[in-house]
Amino acid sequence: MSIPLSISWSEGQLVILDQQKLPHEIEYVTLETLEDVFDAIFTLKVRGAPAIGIAAAYGLALSAVRHETEDLETFFHLVQKDAEYLGSSRPTAVNLVWALQRLASVVRNAGSVDAAKQLLAEEAVRIHEEDEASCRQIGAYGLELLEGKKRVMTICNAGSIATAKYGTALAPFHLGAEIGREFEVYACETRPVFQGSRLTVWELQQSGVNVTLITDSMAAHTIEAKEVEAIIVGADRIAANGDTANKIGTLNLAILANAYNIPFYVAAPSSTFDVSIGSGAEIPIEERKPEEITHFAGEPVAPLGTKVFNPAFDVAPARLITAIITEKGIIKPEYEKNIPAALGAYTGKGAHS
Amino acid sequence: MSIPLSISWSEGQLVILDQQKLPHEIEYVTLETLEDVFDAIFTLKVRGAPAIGIAAAYGLALSAVRHETEDLETFFHLVQKDAEYLGSSRPTAVNLVWALQRLASVVRNAGSVDAAKQLLAEEAVRIHEEDEASCRQIGAYGLELLEGKKRVMTICNAGSIATAKYGTALAPFHLGAEIGREFEVYACETRPVFQGSRLTVWELQQSGVNVTLITDSMAAHTIEAKEVEAIIVGADRIAANGDTANKIGTLNLAILANAYNIPFYVAAPSSTFDVSIGSGAEIPIEERKPEEITHFAGEPVAPLGTKVFNPAFDVAPARLITAIITEKGIIKPEYEKNIPAALGAYTGKGAHS
Repeated sequence: MSIPLSISWSEGQLVILDQQKLPHEIEYVTLETLEDVFDAIFTLKVRGAPAIGIAAAYGLALSAVRHETEDLETFFHLVQKDAEYLGSSRPTAVNLVWALQRLASVVRNAGSVDAAKQLLAEEAVRIHEEDEASCRQIGAYGLELLEGKKRVMTICNAGSIATAKYGTALAPFHLGAEIGREFEVYACETRPVFQGSRLTVWELQQSGVNVTLITDSMAAHTIEAKEVEAIIVGADRIAANGDTANKIGTLNLAILANAYNIPFYVAAPSSTFDVSIGSGAEIPIEERKPEEITHFAGEPVAPLGTKVFNPAFDVAPARLITAIITEKGIIKPEYEKNIPAALGAYTGKGAHS
Repeated sequence: MSIPLSISWSEGQLVILDQQKLPHEIEYVTLETLEDVFDAIFTLKVRGAPAIGIAAAYGLALSAVRHETEDLETFFHLVQKDAEYLGSSRPTAVNLVWALQRLASVVRNAGSVDAAKQLLAEEAVRIHEEDEASCRQIGAYGLELLEGKKRVMTICNAGSIATAKYGTALAPFHLGAEIGREFEVYACETRPVFQGSRLTVWELQQSGVNVTLITDSMAAHTIEAKEVEAIIVGADRIAANGDTANKIGTLNLAILANAYNIPFYVAAPSSTFDVSIGSGAEIPIEERKPEEITHFAGEPVAPLGTKVFNPAFDVAPARLITAIITEKGIIKPEYEKNIPAALGAYTGKGAHS
């Protein structure tokens, strides 16, 4: 039993878990070139905002080592070109651009190309370690809030494999498994893409967490029948007032938690806040292709040409959120006041994807 | 454009729509023997409580014609044997037993075997026609309640093909299409068995109804984004106090309707009431096999051996139900008083399946 990791880096070698093959094949892939890293991000072998950022950072460091120039300006130009190329692998992933910019700016301080190469690798490792520490802290705060509670529901995969380690919404369960706190987790399958069935169930099983799979439609009945005591979810973007965009289905759960009078927690790093956005009404909701709903594994489920509404996210209003768990602390209502207080001057790196 | 029918009977010939092949193949099958009818019910080619009852009634009439005896007692014995055999095709389908008993009792009044054969066929037609009239009436009452409303959500398939014609929850849409009342229907896919994607979407498309498919997880966001004005669902069993058991996911929708302050309607024939049951707490919830959630079309989605909770139904409490639409009229709270008043002495034939 151990917490699954999606990215490892050792002596300049980058290895990732191929999340596209989960849960049926557990395959680790060594990424040797910039193109390998681009492809891994583009084809969703690496997914989850923090994990994408970490993989891209290592990708940049990996490629930099091979640039054969002694001229710092030329080297900087090559790194910049690499960063632009990697950044285009998932244009909406704000974490990706953030990590690449952070690395590229480090090069500016180097006295030589060799030193710059060294700095890039060190900065990538730092991003990786910071994310693990951040997730671990979220897990610890989560355990605090879940004190005395055992049966908890979640949706999607705000998990270890989407981050450096531990994840966000799943961090309390992984950390709990490490220190002997037992939970019964009810994982919603998370239609249309089944991140719950494919990823969360597998990931928690790896940690030895007692996890039960349900369809999203079973949430209300399961809360009643199994006496679920709390719901915890991740976040893609959190507005200044606490409104939280997350995987479609999150809003259903927020309303159910409210109806059953159980706490509804959002767990996310402070980088998820976008305080430039006043409320959830300003968050654009991406619509994805109809085939995600009308087909399964290439096979049609609905009649061909069926009209579909396929929003990827929904927005849980702040009034339904009991607390937001970040690495900087637990934020409770009133969010307009408490979010800036908790984040300090930090304005976030914006939306995840 | 026409309302799809699952059963037709003409000059002693019974033809059914093979619902197992929907929506990809529209195949009608002629059932020639008692064994054919048993098989069609057993393998779910015919599904929906009223449709099963109708098919079984015709099956009994079909078989009776071939019994070559002039002795009424012998004939009655053969019919009784046929009825027992057919009744075992889906033992939990109360409608099935009810229809078969109604036919078998008709034989008692016959003066000759030939007359009895005639009476059986007539009684089967009567059950068929009564169900169509009942569904049409439910549709008319539904249209009354939905006056001025356009955007309506539903789950599962309480549809024409589950009944003689029109269905129950879908009756207002089919009837609306006939008389020029336009709706925008949002059909939840209805995990785990996808009755929404496979049946409801297809069925409403056949009638020319404007229908959009969503996953169950999208219900709350869709109510907000598309300004859904009402939710209408079918029922498997309704207790004396109005608590309603229906396809898993119904309870989620009842809570959402309440949260968004839009009406939540249950549409069902009076035979769905089981007044021997005081409240929903007494309704047993069948659990189905894990593979419905962990697999799709034989392919695994979740890790093998994943623990699953797979309840087939949930119970929407009466306090969340705005009205119950039956062929005998619209029943509104307080249900304890108004259900017996609407049904009269009628105690129902019990649970559907």
